Amino acid sequence: MTDVNARQRLVILAEGEFGEIGSKTAMGVIRYGRDAIVAVIDSTRAGRNVREWLGDRYDIPVVATLAAALPGRPTALLLGTAPAGGKLPAPWRAVVLDAIRAGLDIRSGLHTFLGDDPEFAIAAKVADVSIVDYRRPPERMEVSSGRLHRPGKKVVLTVGTDCALGKMSVALELRKSAVEAGLPAVFVPTGQTGMMIDGWGVAVDRVISDFINGTCEWLVEQAEGMGDWIFVEGQGSLDHPAYSAVTLGLIHGCTPQAMVMVHQAGRSHHHGWEDSSQTLKPLPGFIRLHEQVAGLVAPSVVACVALNTALLSESESRREIARTTEETGLPTDDPYRYGGERLLDALRERLT
Amino acid sequence: MTDVNARQRLVILAEGEFGEIGSKTAMGVIRYGRDAIVAVIDSTRAGRNVREWLGDRYDIPVVATLAAALPGRPTALLLGTAPAGGKLPAPWRAVVLDAIRAGLDIRSGLHTFLGDDPEFAIAAKVADVSIVDYRRPPERMEVSSGRLHRPGKKVVLTVGTDCALGKMSVALELRKSAVEAGLPAVFVPTGQTGMMIDGWGVAVDRVISDFINGTCEWLVEQAEGMGDWIFVEGQGSLDHPAYSAVTLGLIHGCTPQAMVMVHQAGRSHHHGWEDSSQTLKPLPGFIRLHEQVAGLVAPSVVACVALNTALLSESESRREIARTTEETGLPTDDPYRYGGERLLDALRERLT
Repeated sequence: MTDVNARQRLVILAEGEFGEIGSKTAMGVIRYGRDAIVAVIDSTRAGRNVREWLGDRYDIPVVATLAAALPGRPTALLLGTAPAGGKLPAPWRAVVLDAIRAGLDIRSGLHTFLGDDPEFAIAAKVADVSIVDYRRPPERMEVSSGRLHRPGKKVVLTVGTDCALGKMSVALELRKSAVEAGLPAVFVPTGQTGMMIDGWGVAVDRVISDFINGTCEWLVEQAEGMGDWIFVEGQGSLDHPAYSAVTLGLIHGCTPQAMVMVHQAGRSHHHGWEDSSQTLKPLPGFIRLHEQVAGLVAPSVVACVALNTALLSESESRREIARTTEETGLPTDDPYRYGGERLLDALRERLT
Repeated sequence: MTDVNARQRLVILAEGEFGEIGSKTAMGVIRYGRDAIVAVIDSTRAGRNVREWLGDRYDIPVVATLAAALPGRPTALLLGTAPAGGKLPAPWRAVVLDAIRAGLDIRSGLHTFLGDDPEFAIAAKVADVSIVDYRRPPERMEVSSGRLHRPGKKVVLTVGTDCALGKMSVALELRKSAVEAGLPAVFVPTGQTGMMIDGWGVAVDRVISDFINGTCEWLVEQAEGMGDWIFVEGQGSLDHPAYSAVTLGLIHGCTPQAMVMVHQAGRSHHHGWEDSSQTLKPLPGFIRLHEQVAGLVAPSVVACVALNTALLSESESRREIARTTEETGLPTDDPYRYGGERLLDALRERLT
């Protein structure tokens, strides 16, 4: 058996996208993961360093090719971008094969399972390396049973106005703040990046639709065995033309007592849908609608707003946080920038 | 290649459930399908006749065993009940094997694919019969693209206060009324029973969550090539603890200009969740919420209410239809009992 949680020395493939939204897997794993990072591959940014994006704690070279990363003695290649639809871009095939032949394990979150590809599978067998497809769904196929939370458990789900704006990061920052505050806290990964970071979970967007609510219910049941404060990573958004079903499966499957609304200041359209006539929804009505829709199955409140202010200067950020508090009447902060304490306080106040 | 649309002489397995909600597949195929029905197998009701449930047009014996059905020269065995979770009940294995050995094709809508079962597959090869698993998803795996309807196309989705209360039947009755009115109308099957009846479609609850919105969008695109009035069979309900994700995938994937709200008079709880504290939602607020939630992606109205009055006498039924019109302000009828004309009129008024 491959121990997928054994520590690795990763080289991360983020060709053409490092630092952009498309490389959110790479960014998440670098920032929150437990493995050492040897290098990032992005030929369009070769010669630069991850510290330019994430600060001085992250001294990781960006290189043009796998060959240029090998002197750093990596043990695994991680695919660090997430193309819509999750297929393997054609040019990556050679990189994956070269990595396997160089003795590296492969870590992928694509919908296309690399371990099922005969060419990759044979090469991996010859090289005695493992291929882990994080999106491979569990054998378990069960519909929701209407399970109630155990007494004392607080389940919090991050929801948002779009995909790819920080719902996973917010859940991780809240878990960190909760642990620092001495609370027995758990992070529930529901996507491939969260799984790479925390070593367990299910990529729920890969689960058969009939079983997504039931799988989310089961994930929370597992988490209740690990701690009292349960921060579930959200996916997509309730108004997303492509991913809304996944979002609702999480809301009704997890039955969170509280939700955290995540929004990126300055984003007007769904990521990748910039030409659409559909703009992101104003927060107050969208928050109310989340409470109504969640409440169809179990009561839930949006307790606070996590504002991603990455596009703003610090002073602009503070102003926008204040403006959002005013607009929504809810405690607001950017936990990625300023830590999760204030939002955790808001949650503790609502849930205890 | 098996022609799954070749006409058959069916024997339908509905053991222990014929006439109950659990046999909705059997009932739907008998009432709306195009195949001849030789017999229904239900040992608990053997000796009775389908006409007791569906009226004199349906002279079909209920028998105790497959052997008792064979003199009617069936060509296929259809599994006519839909256990939650879609697994094969253990006692059915022998019946399926006996049917295969007797030279019958197998037609199944279970999540468990019978064609992938080695014992069934080998037996089918030996007997030269086909096994069709209607829930097998299409190869196509694409997320929604935000496609707009072609000009002049009217897309209508049936939604409801629960699963298993007639959303498929309402869509079929509306298609029938539309065809009778001379409109080029299409029924879009989104579940295994609809597929058995109409010979195409996708069981969308079997599709990977990430692709359900995209698959529904694609089904409507196919339907737009077949006619102008498109009646999409709904699934589950927006407030269903287990199936709501599937429902929202249909709403946001199909972007119907109008919805028909289906409700069963006298039903207070979700089917199979009778012990839950959650009761079915009052119609007026639930209707508004559907319009709000659908409107997150594209404007839509609930144009009318289809009331399943199967539990009521005719006079009670008329009273309850009038009361529902009063309560919701919307045209209401039981299209299964009285035909789809009135609801079609309501849709034509709203959409033209």
